[in-house]
Amino acid sequence: MFTYAVDVMGGDLGPRVAFKACKKFLRFRRDVSLTLTVTTEYYQEACSYFSGNPRVRVIQCQSSIEATDKPSQMLRKGQSSTMAVALLEHQQGRAHGVLSIGNTGALMVLARQSMGMLPDLERPALATMLPTRGKPLLMLDLGANLSVDADRLVQFACIGAAWSETLTGQPASVGLLNVGRESGKGTDCVRIADENLSELMPENYQGFQEGDDLYKGELDVLVTDGFAGNITLKASEALSDWLLELFNREFRQHWLMKWFVWLWLPAVRSIERRVSPARHGGALLLGIKGVVVKTHGSSDARTFRYALRYLHEKTRNFDALQLQQRYLNHRRHTASSSDE
Amino acid sequence: MFTYAVDVMGGDLGPRVAFKACKKFLRFRRDVSLTLTVTTEYYQEACSYFSGNPRVRVIQCQSSIEATDKPSQMLRKGQSSTMAVALLEHQQGRAHGVLSIGNTGALMVLARQSMGMLPDLERPALATMLPTRGKPLLMLDLGANLSVDADRLVQFACIGAAWSETLTGQPASVGLLNVGRESGKGTDCVRIADENLSELMPENYQGFQEGDDLYKGELDVLVTDGFAGNITLKASEALSDWLLELFNREFRQHWLMKWFVWLWLPAVRSIERRVSPARHGGALLLGIKGVVVKTHGSSDARTFRYALRYLHEKTRNFDALQLQQRYLNHRRHTASSSDE
Repeated sequence: MFTYAVDVMGGDLGPRVAFKACKKFLRFRRDVSLTLTVTTEYYQEACSYFSGNPRVRVIQCQSSIEATDKPSQMLRKGQSSTMAVALLEHQQGRAHGVLSIGNTGALMVLARQSMGMLPDLERPALATMLPTRGKPLLMLDLGANLSVDADRLVQFACIGAAWSETLTGQPASVGLLNVGRESGKGTDCVRIADENLSELMPENYQGFQEGDDLYKGELDVLVTDGFAGNITLKASEALSDWLLELFNREFRQHWLMKWFVWLWLPAVRSIERRVSPARHGGALLLGIKGVVVKTHGSSDARTFRYALRYLHEKTRNFDALQLQQRYLNHRRHTASSSDE
Repeated sequence: MFTYAVDVMGGDLGPRVAFKACKKFLRFRRDVSLTLTVTTEYYQEACSYFSGNPRVRVIQCQSSIEATDKPSQMLRKGQSSTMAVALLEHQQGRAHGVLSIGNTGALMVLARQSMGMLPDLERPALATMLPTRGKPLLMLDLGANLSVDADRLVQFACIGAAWSETLTGQPASVGLLNVGRESGKGTDCVRIADENLSELMPENYQGFQEGDDLYKGELDVLVTDGFAGNITLKASEALSDWLLELFNREFRQHWLMKWFVWLWLPAVRSIERRVSPARHGGALLLGIKGVVVKTHGSSDARTFRYALRYLHEKTRNFDALQLQQRYLNHRRHTASSSDE
């Protein structure tokens, strides 16, 4: 049996979308139980919504961190919040992982405090699995670290490779996002990172990758700074939304195509499922000693359910000790080579 | 009659794709004549290919700048290259604009030398028109300026607005790309640029834009640094290629859909034309005193022809003096407000 702690507070649409998502998710996953952290206001509602389901536990908390909270308010709410309580469940071993829809900044601070970081890392990185032509691509950072130096990019490469290897059991191939493939191109920061990675992870590192390479499906891990990563991801999501909309509209314009809607709609839906942002609506917090997934604040019940599934998939075969070991191996290699 | 200088050398596929594109382009544009700059090697071929066409002039040049050339080699070839000769045609008023398929870095250096820059600008910015849900979006920089400071972003906003206003005759709305919409989000650089722009171009400036906003079609100009801009653009091109490929493949799988290919293929083609990277295969060099378009080094004959059309569209109603005046107005406003 797998247990996950779910912080349902702080989303744009309120906690009911999360309740709905949890109920539906549990219906199809008999091996999962959930611990929901809610504020007093929603406690009774949650209890009656899930009444009679032995696989749901609801914890009443004093406060929740809202998207509009200032850092000082977040700090004050601190340990009494639904987010902190959910993280505590994980930290104390009563949950295998955490899903939160709340404020990303607060989640990073609290997760670091509660679970601690892997060595050499100061802040968690946000990562997600992008759908591609081939294997899914673990891309990081997506906005947690806006300005980075070369060493931070190397750290991202190590933690990304360790994650990928822990999930797949295979050596990870790692790339660094840049404006050109030739070494010597790009900013000082990526050039230094490129040199270091070539030296430190020669079996893993595949060199610079351009924006065109994102959907090729040949890599396991793609490293970039949080500024470029965030913008690239959001622009890609917006573009695929627009293209799918164009197809739907263009096809409905013709009366004969309207007749054959039963024929082409499944094809469009299948592509939508494959590339839809809702499918990869979960971002992982990498670098902390635990499994924490963050879903978009704007998530609806479907996206929230996908995020639950995502957490389950990522956690099922996940071994935190193995992750740490693989990460340390990469880092140690890095450190010893730097010393030479 | 409009005359354009075309530097056909330096593309991945050789100059013949350019010859083909030029011939086809001239067939449909009776009001255009072209001046082609070629190396001695291809001079005879070009002359016989276009023989009898009074709207083509071929200029024989001593050298061409190749993608693989080192800066020192480029410098040595300098003024005798096909690129420099094409730019000279424009600078001396014998051509209304220049199209080049050659090395971007060399084109920027030579264009600046030959035509000069607008005041306060050190380097040209690369810009392109992105297709969107609404009006096309002029996005800059796309890789010419990888590390920028806040003032450079403000300059991009001024030159972008001036271009858009010169082309459309309407006041331009300008946005700044960032990881969030709220002021206070993002790196120091974009935060300072945001403050300055709010103060200096209050009628034009629409604040921070996220990656999601790229395809909304509500803005005229979107400003970002060359690193994020380059990656975002290339990732978007790769994503739309992949999605169109998915649609084509998914639809051909079903035997009934194969029958109805005449029905759905035009719809797919129409979407392809609307979003295809080949359509916006041209990048503008903004900031120099002239109209210079650069097409991808990998362009085939179709993309090259689109780039010619793009140059023609951008140049037809273009008034360089008006551009300079509008740019100076934005800058002067900027400068005087800074002094207060």
